[in-house]
Amino acid sequence: MTRVKVVGASGYGGVGIIELLLRHPQAKIQALVAQESVGAPVSDLYPHLAGFCDMTIVAPDAPEALAPADVVFMSTPDGVTMREARAEIARGAQVVDCSGDFRFNTEADYADYASRTGKPTAHADPGLLPLTVYGAAELHRAQINPERKIVGNPGCFAISCILGLAPAAASGLVRLDSLICDCKSGISGAGKKLAAAHHYPNRYEMMNAYRLSGHQHVVEIERELTLVAGAPALVMFTAQVVPMCRGIMSCLYGDLVREADEADIVALYKEFYKDSPFVRVLPSASPAGGTMHVRGTNYANLVVSVDKRTRRLRIVSYIDNLMKGQCGSAIQCMNLLRGYPETMGLTQPGFYP
Amino acid sequence: MTRVKVVGASGYGGVGIIELLLRHPQAKIQALVAQESVGAPVSDLYPHLAGFCDMTIVAPDAPEALAPADVVFMSTPDGVTMREARAEIARGAQVVDCSGDFRFNTEADYADYASRTGKPTAHADPGLLPLTVYGAAELHRAQINPERKIVGNPGCFAISCILGLAPAAASGLVRLDSLICDCKSGISGAGKKLAAAHHYPNRYEMMNAYRLSGHQHVVEIERELTLVAGAPALVMFTAQVVPMCRGIMSCLYGDLVREADEADIVALYKEFYKDSPFVRVLPSASPAGGTMHVRGTNYANLVVSVDKRTRRLRIVSYIDNLMKGQCGSAIQCMNLLRGYPETMGLTQPGFYP
Amino acid sequence: MTRVKVVGASGYGGVGIIELLLRHPQAKIQALVAQESVGAPVSDLYPHLAGFCDMTIVAPDAPEALAPADVVFMSTPDGVTMREARAEIARGAQVVDCSGDFRFNTEADYADYASRTGKPTAHADPGLLPLTVYGAAELHRAQINPERKIVGNPGCFAISCILGLAPAAASGLVRLDSLICDCKSGISGAGKKLAAAHHYPNRYEMMNAYRLSGHQHVVEIERELTLVAGAPALVMFTAQVVPMCRGIMSCLYGDLVREADEADIVALYKEFYKDSPFVRVLPSASPAGGTMHVRGTNYANLVVSVDKRTRRLRIVSYIDNLMKGQCGSAIQCMNLLRGYPETMGLTQPGFYP
Amino acid sequence: MTRVKVVGASGYGGVGIIELLLRHPQAKIQALVAQESVGAPVSDLYPHLAGFCDMTIVAPDAPEALAPADVVFMSTPDGVTMREARAEIARGAQVVDCSGDFRFNTEADYADYASRTGKPTAHADPGLLPLTVYGAAELHRAQINPERKIVGNPGCFAISCILGLAPAAASGLVRLDSLICDCKSGISGAGKKLAAAHHYPNRYEMMNAYRLSGHQHVVEIERELTLVAGAPALVMFTAQVVPMCRGIMSCLYGDLVREADEADIVALYKEFYKDSPFVRVLPSASPAGGTMHVRGTNYANLVVSVDKRTRRLRIVSYIDNLMKGQCGSAIQCMNLLRGYPETMGLTQPGFYP
Repeated sequence: MTRVKVVGASGYGGVGIIELLLRHPQAKIQALVAQESVGAPVSDLYPHLAGFCDMTIVAPDAPEALAPADVVFMSTPDGVTMREARAEIARGAQVVDCSGDFRFNTEADYADYASRTGKPTAHADPGLLPLTVYGAAELHRAQINPERKIVGNPGCFAISCILGLAPAAASGLVRLDSLICDCKSGISGAGKKLAAAHHYPNRYEMMNAYRLSGHQHVVEIERELTLVAGAPALVMFTAQVVPMCRGIMSCLYGDLVREADEADIVALYKEFYKDSPFVRVLPSASPAGGTMHVRGTNYANLVVSVDKRTRRLRIVSYIDNLMKGQCGSAIQCMNLLRGYPETMGLTQPGFYP
Repeated sequence: MTRVKVVGASGYGGVGIIELLLRHPQAKIQALVAQESVGAPVSDLYPHLAGFCDMTIVAPDAPEALAPADVVFMSTPDGVTMREARAEIARGAQVVDCSGDFRFNTEADYADYASRTGKPTAHADPGLLPLTVYGAAELHRAQINPERKIVGNPGCFAISCILGLAPAAASGLVRLDSLICDCKSGISGAGKKLAAAHHYPNRYEMMNAYRLSGHQHVVEIERELTLVAGAPALVMFTAQVVPMCRGIMSCLYGDLVREADEADIVALYKEFYKDSPFVRVLPSASPAGGTMHVRGTNYANLVVSVDKRTRRLRIVSYIDNLMKGQCGSAIQCMNLLRGYPETMGLTQPGFYP
Repeated sequence: MTRVKVVGASGYGGVGIIELLLRHPQAKIQALVAQESVGAPVSDLYPHLAGFCDMTIVAPDAPEALAPADVVFMSTPDGVTMREARAEIARGAQVVDCSGDFRFNTEADYADYASRTGKPTAHADPGLLPLTVYGAAELHRAQINPERKIVGNPGCFAISCILGLAPAAASGLVRLDSLICDCKSGISGAGKKLAAAHHYPNRYEMMNAYRLSGHQHVVEIERELTLVAGAPALVMFTAQVVPMCRGIMSCLYGDLVREADEADIVALYKEFYKDSPFVRVLPSASPAGGTMHVRGTNYANLVVSVDKRTRRLRIVSYIDNLMKGQCGSAIQCMNLLRGYPETMGLTQPGFYP
Repeated sequence: MTRVKVVGASGYGGVGIIELLLRHPQAKIQALVAQESVGAPVSDLYPHLAGFCDMTIVAPDAPEALAPADVVFMSTPDGVTMREARAEIARGAQVVDCSGDFRFNTEADYADYASRTGKPTAHADPGLLPLTVYGAAELHRAQINPERKIVGNPGCFAISCILGLAPAAASGLVRLDSLICDCKSGISGAGKKLAAAHHYPNRYEMMNAYRLSGHQHVVEIERELTLVAGAPALVMFTAQVVPMCRGIMSCLYGDLVREADEADIVALYKEFYKDSPFVRVLPSASPAGGTMHVRGTNYANLVVSVDKRTRRLRIVSYIDNLMKGQCGSAIQCMNLLRGYPETMGLTQPGFYP
């Protein structure tokens, strides 16, 4: 049994992790920690949990928060985990961080990432950076293991792009300087924090691109694709928001460097992901293309197509931004950290409609 | 283990029952039957089921469809089950019918119900009517038992109203001729069948009342409230549709026959439902009032309030129309029919947001 | 030509009034006033106005704000107009107030209203109360005239109920103590102010009732129905929110005191509103029942039905909460205040879908 | 005054044209023609038109349909106008065709277009093809004149892409074989016809790409960009649908052939569109980026940005698919065909929210 602490339990990421822990056969929630709503049962904030999890939210320095845990999920904004990870590790925990603090192994990469959101570029605990691994289980499965102290859970847009492009990059199928990621997210990706842009009347008939001058997720996409390709990848990235709650649809483009038809590429992708239970590789005619078919699940549905006229590959990558894009990946990492089967607690189909 | 056949497997009700059966520890799906999509894997119709349930849909007269089952779910339009139930029972099955065919024990009640949707008023197999019981487990738990051959699963609007008003009717708290049910449903309540009224552009900014001349659900509401009260109940009913997918919110009104404040009535309702695990009775200040807090679950959240100025009781009843309103109730009935704990396979919290 | 000042120009009510003024042949916007966004062109806040209205928002005490205007629209929260109306009148303006400050002619009625929202119950300028008239043009057309100094524009829920019940109350058709108003609104009714309840992910699959202990609009509904009936009306009111932007659907119930069928009541209602160009009286079978058919317009569509079984009248009243529910009514009042045809600038059909 | 006939009056395109004609000072609707709903007042189909346009829909061969008109709008599926245009012209009308029948001047181009939707590739009246002009007023203003007999109104996706890329193509700013159009549309773009993909419950949380093997709009995009560039343009196109009603957001990418920063390109675009009143060129920091800011209007908002890292231009083009994408463009063409000011009847700001 794994004793789990969730920090940032009052946000969408926190509640998503709680939902998954409740149906995980080997997890036991030990503490729910947040800065706000301290003293309230989490089921007051999220009444659908009533009877399932009525634990009280405690402050970060409460005794319950400091009791030893095996795994600590940090569902916190950038800048928090870098200050707390060392103490958690010292108390014996493995840390799964959902912020950007531990997605990079070097100070330079972190600084590049942080600069894109206007945050301080100096990492508060650079000594820990060599200890972390990027939590894309499909690419780093072996390194997310019981010896690992920290995992940097991927960004939601990032994982949708990385899963979609990694096989093409690894196999030399596309020019590495030709990659474009045109990504659309539902609103839950922006979290629970109120914003005029996500006020219902301002959003219901509104789609728009944002942060056109540079989105922070491009750093981890390029790093991962470069790693898998063994050569520098250069990515153009466009972030967009559409009026729905859950789902990311990323259209990924790359110039083909050799003739290849759809069936070849589907085969190549299937081979690449043959040990990855949460990736479905699909031909362009598949009925499974669409965010609703992955909603509430940890799956990525990758639809392959080739535009012969322009000699370009197009992958359309569908995930649930709160599942494969955050909480599902986090649990998948926990399973690997604890030596459990990778799919434990994650195999259920969502609901429809 | 219970061998289950689902008839009408290609509709929303069918897929909802399949989703629940997949996580039920004692159920085994034996056949998926439908008139359309015969020969297709159900996961072609509902790609979120891929890897979870890829069974092929078979025609009603296929050999697989005729193999013995312990429980048969009929998620079919009115008029189908009345022609098939006798054969299913002869093959040894217990039948849970989600249509209106077996919600009534008399031909007259059935005729009254059928007349409201313009259907033939003669029941095709009246000899079976005495064998059925209305599947509101909260009211008829004891009669939904291993000896029972047929259960008439409640209508979605109906169960939201019955659960909300039964304690008041049973206790003589309200005038039985003063009852008003003002009910709003999400679109999934109308099912999978295409209709101009549910075409996205026609619906996204549209709410409306419909069938103002008389909705068929009023018959079962009055019958159940009359039963529980021991005196005739007369109900006015208004059906409305709002632009969302899952959820019913029913505002239920009745003239108080005696002084009573909210706390008294909350206590009375809690007592009434003390053995009903899927009913939550809530005071008016509860944060749990809202369809989203029951989405994807078998719960009914009942919010009690009293308008002292007009001496009226108001219950706001929230359910998920596809769960407590159909599939969840159906599984709850299966559990009782098979002697399992009532909550088996139904205890999970939904997801948020 | 009418010189117009809009106070509260940065909110949804303000922008709605601006949109209508831009197509009004006799109106000229003279100043846009707000507390926030001072110095910004209104088209920065509402970019759809770019090229149509790029005026700068000024502070309440700016010289432009103090220049003489013929009509001042106050689209401000409760408590503002009562402090500013006297000065506006002194400068020669007629005031159309969209808050609750001038919907009542007595201090007692105002106090009753204010108590329901937890506001101070003392009116800041009670001397002005006798000068105001309630801006339901359909009921008080003659009193909204060039001599009038203040108009209290109706609340959005209130006008939908008043229009729906006034003919029945006036004609003695229903018991005045039996009235129930079950009202649902789109989210724009809550205005521009951010709230967790209206954050897109919290709202998209959420409908709920709120303020169950008493909504302030009931005071003006009862007052108007009492006036038109000549006897005290007692109303139960339930406010609900549904996930859409624009629209109110109010189901209005009353016990019939005499036999009457739908056709009789349709005729009675048509006679009552024969001089009211913005009210459409419709039989229950009309295709025009639905919020989308009044969206963007100043119309109220009233659908009449009778439940013979329970001897009750049911009116379903549909309006656009930001038009007939606020801005359209306000312009209609301006037309009457200035002696223009009541429909000037208000006759256009909205758009579909 | 222009006498107007609308063919296909019962669809979304038809009703949109009617709405615009009702506020056009020089247009008079003479006949509404459709295959279905013949004999019904158009306000029965679209109740928001009640009192504004209650004309009866007539069959194509009704006497009213054959009376002379000055302009005929064909809002019909592909294949209809090619059979009817000759007769309309013979009766003296100028034809604005909203289908693909007259977007091309050669049989070969038409065949290429038609092949992508599986339609017959032979044009039924090729003799008329030389007479038509593509109705992108911003590019062919001079040719859409009182002598013109036919205009092929642009496809909705197409016009969003053409307006977004034409200045870059014309100025040699981008490599003409590097163009990618990643386009997302609201559901109204698919019209009034029922489809499972647009049934509300199937769509509310669903975004997806479709027709990945080739969308017909790419033909007209390439043709127009080739014309304006004077050299062959090659375009990759991805069509996507998102859960909202009105709006297209097209992300347009091209490799820069020379250094250029955002301000330069904004200036270049503004110069290109200096005589085009419906195009707004905006820097990347503009608040006007978003579909809601053009909803209900004939505007295209073009947001310019440059990705220096990858040396690529990105234009995000926002239109209302039913306005600039169809009905607004059609009226704009009518104005030019009749010698009216281009903006007549089209200058109003939409509504918010």
